[in-house]
Amino acid sequence: MKISIIGVGLIGGSIALKLKEKGVAEFIYGIDKSDKHLNEALDLKIIDAKVDLEYGIKNSDLVIVAIPVDGAGRILPDVLDLISENQTVMDAGSTKAGIVEAIKDHPKRSRFVAFHPMWGTENNGPKSAIADSFSGKAGVICNKEESAEDALHLVEKIVESLDMHLIYMNAGDHDLHTAYISHISHITSYALANTVLEKEREEETIFQLASSGFSSTVRLAKSHPEMWVPIFRQNKENVLDVLNEHISQLRKFKSALEKENYEYLEELIKNANKIRGILDK
Amino acid sequence: MKISIIGVGLIGGSIALKLKEKGVAEFIYGIDKSDKHLNEALDLKIIDAKVDLEYGIKNSDLVIVAIPVDGAGRILPDVLDLISENQTVMDAGSTKAGIVEAIKDHPKRSRFVAFHPMWGTENNGPKSAIADSFSGKAGVICNKEESAEDALHLVEKIVESLDMHLIYMNAGDHDLHTAYISHISHITSYALANTVLEKEREEETIFQLASSGFSSTVRLAKSHPEMWVPIFRQNKENVLDVLNEHISQLRKFKSALEKENYEYLEELIKNANKIRGILDK
Repeated sequence: MKISIIGVGLIGGSIALKLKEKGVAEFIYGIDKSDKHLNEALDLKIIDAKVDLEYGIKNSDLVIVAIPVDGAGRILPDVLDLISENQTVMDAGSTKAGIVEAIKDHPKRSRFVAFHPMWGTENNGPKSAIADSFSGKAGVICNKEESAEDALHLVEKIVESLDMHLIYMNAGDHDLHTAYISHISHITSYALANTVLEKEREEETIFQLASSGFSSTVRLAKSHPEMWVPIFRQNKENVLDVLNEHISQLRKFKSALEKENYEYLEELIKNANKIRGILDK
Repeated sequence: MKISIIGVGLIGGSIALKLKEKGVAEFIYGIDKSDKHLNEALDLKIIDAKVDLEYGIKNSDLVIVAIPVDGAGRILPDVLDLISENQTVMDAGSTKAGIVEAIKDHPKRSRFVAFHPMWGTENNGPKSAIADSFSGKAGVICNKEESAEDALHLVEKIVESLDMHLIYMNAGDHDLHTAYISHISHITSYALANTVLEKEREEETIFQLASSGFSSTVRLAKSHPEMWVPIFRQNKENVLDVLNEHISQLRKFKSALEKENYEYLEELIKNANKIRGILDK
C-alpha cells in the first residue's frame, strides 16, 4: 500500500516507521510545510520521497493527516476534494469533535476515518519518532458510522498494525474523556513548571535537586504550544470544566493544611490512592 | 561497619542494599514496628538480623533512621540517648527543619547528621527497595556545622557510596526548595487523581484511555499518606505558599481559556517550556 503522511513529526513519523516495519506501507510520501523536517524524515528513512500535497494524495491508497488539530481541520476539506472514492483519509489528532464537524457535509465524508492514538511525548519533529511507541496503547476511532465500510476496515487494519487496542467512541465523548485523561494533565504540568519557575529563582537549585518525582510530574510541561494551544482551543468547554474541578480539588488540600485538619488531608490522599487500583489493573 | 536501619521500607531498604553491594555494610540490623516488613527484609537479604531498638543501637557504628518524618522526630532523642560518643546517627527524611529542631538541645546533637536523598517512588515497603535507585541523584546534608567532624565525614562517605552527588544546605532552605521541587508535585498529582476520579465515573474508560502522559503525571498520586501527611504537616508554611502560587498559575490558564486569549495561552506554555532547558542541562 502507498501512503501519504501529511506532517512527518512525532506522530506521523512514528506511524510511518511502524507501518514500514510491519510491511504494511510499501512506499511513503512525506508532505510537510517544514523542508527541514522532510529532509530529516528522508534521512531517517521515515519517508521514501518528499512531495507536494496534490502529488502525494493522487498517488496514495491512504492519506494520514498528522498535523496540529487546527491545521488538520483546515486542510481536511481540501484533501477530501482531491481524493477518489477508492482512497481513504485518516487523521491522528487529539481532539475529534472539531475535525468531524469541519467535514460533516463534505460529499466525500465517508472516505474519512477519525482516529486518535493515545500516545505522545513532550518531544516533536521526525527525530523524536519511535516505531514501537503505540504498542499496547488505545487507538480510538470516532463516529465510525459516518465512514464507508471499506475505509473503516482499512483504518482498523492500520490500528491493528500499530499494535494498539481499538476503541470506538463518538467524537463528543472522546473529547470529554481526553479532557480528563490527557488535556488536564498538560495544564497541571505547565502550571507546575510556571509555579516552580516563578517561586524558585535559583535555576541551579532546581537542576540539582530535581528528583524523579518532579521530573515525571513536570515532563509534559516541555510539550510545544504549536500542538497544545489548538487542542485546548478546540476542547475549551471540556477543559475548562475539568480545570475548574481541579482547582477546587487543590483548594481542598489548601483548606486541610490551613485548618491543620490532617485527618481530612489523609482522606484526600487515600481517595487519590484509588487511582493505583484503576491504572494498575 | 555495622549498621542499624530503623525502618526497612523503600528508603531504608534501598540504602541497605546499596551499602551491602558496595561492601560498606558488613552487617545490618533491621528495626521496624512491622514484623512483616522485617521478615520480608530478611528474605530479600536487605538486613542480616531483626532486633529491637536498644540492641541494634548498642551494636552499631552507624544508625540510619528511615521512617516517616513525624516518627523520626519523636524517636531521634531516644536514639541519641542510647548512643555513645563513638557512634553516628543519620536520618533520611524529606523535611529537615523539624528534625533538626527536635534535637537541637540534645547533649549528643553533634553525633547526628541530617540527610535527605532526593529520590523516592510511589511504592513502599522492603519489596520496593532498589539498590541502584540513588545513583546520580542529589544527597542533601543539612546544618553540617551542628555535626561533629567525624560523624559528618562518615555520612559523607555513605552518601558517596550511594553514588549521590553531595549538596550542603541549611534545613530551612532545604524545606523551602523541596516544597517547590518535590512536595507541590505530590499535591498536584493527588489533586489530579481526585479530579479524574470525581469527573470520570467510568473507571474502565480511565484504564483504557490512560496514556503515558497521564500515567506519568498521576504516578505520585499513588504515594502513601503515612509518609506524606507528616511531610506536608512539617512543611506546612512553605507548601501552602507554593500551593497558593500554583493555584494562581492555574487561574491564568483558566482566564486565558475563558477569554479565548490564545496569545496569552501560548505565552504561558512557552514560559513553562523553559523547564526543559533547566532540567535537561
